[in-house]
Amino acid sequence: MQLLKDRIKKDGTVKAGNVLKVDSFLNHQIDVGLMNEIGKEFRRLFEDRNITKILTIEASGIAVACITAQYFKVPVVFAKKAQSINLDGDSYTTKIESFTHKKIYDVIVSKKYLSPNDHVLIIDDFLANGCALIGLIDLVKAAGATVEGVGIVIEKGFQKGGDEIRATGVNLHSLAVIESMNDVTGEIVFRDSE
Amino acid sequence: MQLLKDRIKKDGTVKAGNVLKVDSFLNHQIDVGLMNEIGKEFRRLFEDRNITKILTIEASGIAVACITAQYFKVPVVFAKKAQSINLDGDSYTTKIESFTHKKIYDVIVSKKYLSPNDHVLIIDDFLANGCALIGLIDLVKAAGATVEGVGIVIEKGFQKGGDEIRATGVNLHSLAVIESMNDVTGEIVFRDSE
Repeated sequence: MQLLKDRIKKDGTVKAGNVLKVDSFLNHQIDVGLMNEIGKEFRRLFEDRNITKILTIEASGIAVACITAQYFKVPVVFAKKAQSINLDGDSYTTKIESFTHKKIYDVIVSKKYLSPNDHVLIIDDFLANGCALIGLIDLVKAAGATVEGVGIVIEKGFQKGGDEIRATGVNLHSLAVIESMNDVTGEIVFRDSE
Repeated sequence: MQLLKDRIKKDGTVKAGNVLKVDSFLNHQIDVGLMNEIGKEFRRLFEDRNITKILTIEASGIAVACITAQYFKVPVVFAKKAQSINLDGDSYTTKIESFTHKKIYDVIVSKKYLSPNDHVLIIDDFLANGCALIGLIDLVKAAGATVEGVGIVIEKGFQKGGDEIRATGVNLHSLAVIESMNDVTGEIVFRDSE
């Protein structure tokens, strides 16, 4: 998606440790106009699928998931990190390791909000090693629901997650795949894609 | 807002300990159509203010803030709980006590995304004791920005937060104010409001 790649080039900054900071428009401050263009593009990519629900994970996935859901006219469910007393005990659970925060989270979805009849589009802002996405796929499978597709805003293509998950047959589309980036020169190279 | 009150009566459940569960449409599963009606209502309530930015706090405030931002055509900034290595050290910080999770969070906003020129609408899903909201107001003041208003989806009017913050002169509107609720009968009584 050229608009997104242009924005990453313009406003993204590369930091040591393979960190791409896009917090001016994606995951701290949010450019809602750009999110709308992203939502329309996800609709185009998955328009042949009969999506009944969008699943994401808190926190920064919620923005793009909710804006995208407007184009599918379906509810969003966001998986929660760690147990909350406001949730019923009756939940699907999995564990996700965060490299950003250097810890392992319990991640849960109430059984009320994923059912075997659901055809789920998983949406998230970032894909790198794939741990979060594998956890979300696990939650959908635990519910007996169907993963119709996965839509990612930015994939770090030089990490293994995206290609490994594609190899399992998951219908995964990333709007911008970063082939390489350099924290000294600031250069960001994208993989050619749809 | 009658549509919201009707939905709370229909799908909300009252639990012991003054807990109102609305996770079927507001803070776990999200009814994006309802969020749009809420966004339009916030626009109506604050249309006389020259809003430049919407501020919320992760996680469940992000959905309503982003949908609402579409009606103001401004960016959203969400305050983050606890330090992330993906954020610059150059942040405004405050502390917020969560009664739901029984702990105190450090809450931060990057100095890049709140400036003295900003006219801020604070949006959140819940207001009870007011700790989170006072923290967000502190962050805006720390930036030298102006709090133009506060929009809350559901206020627990039987807790002190909302009335105390109104008493300080903050332009605070809650779309549904719960005057009382009973976890034995399930009854929910709303305060009459705009």
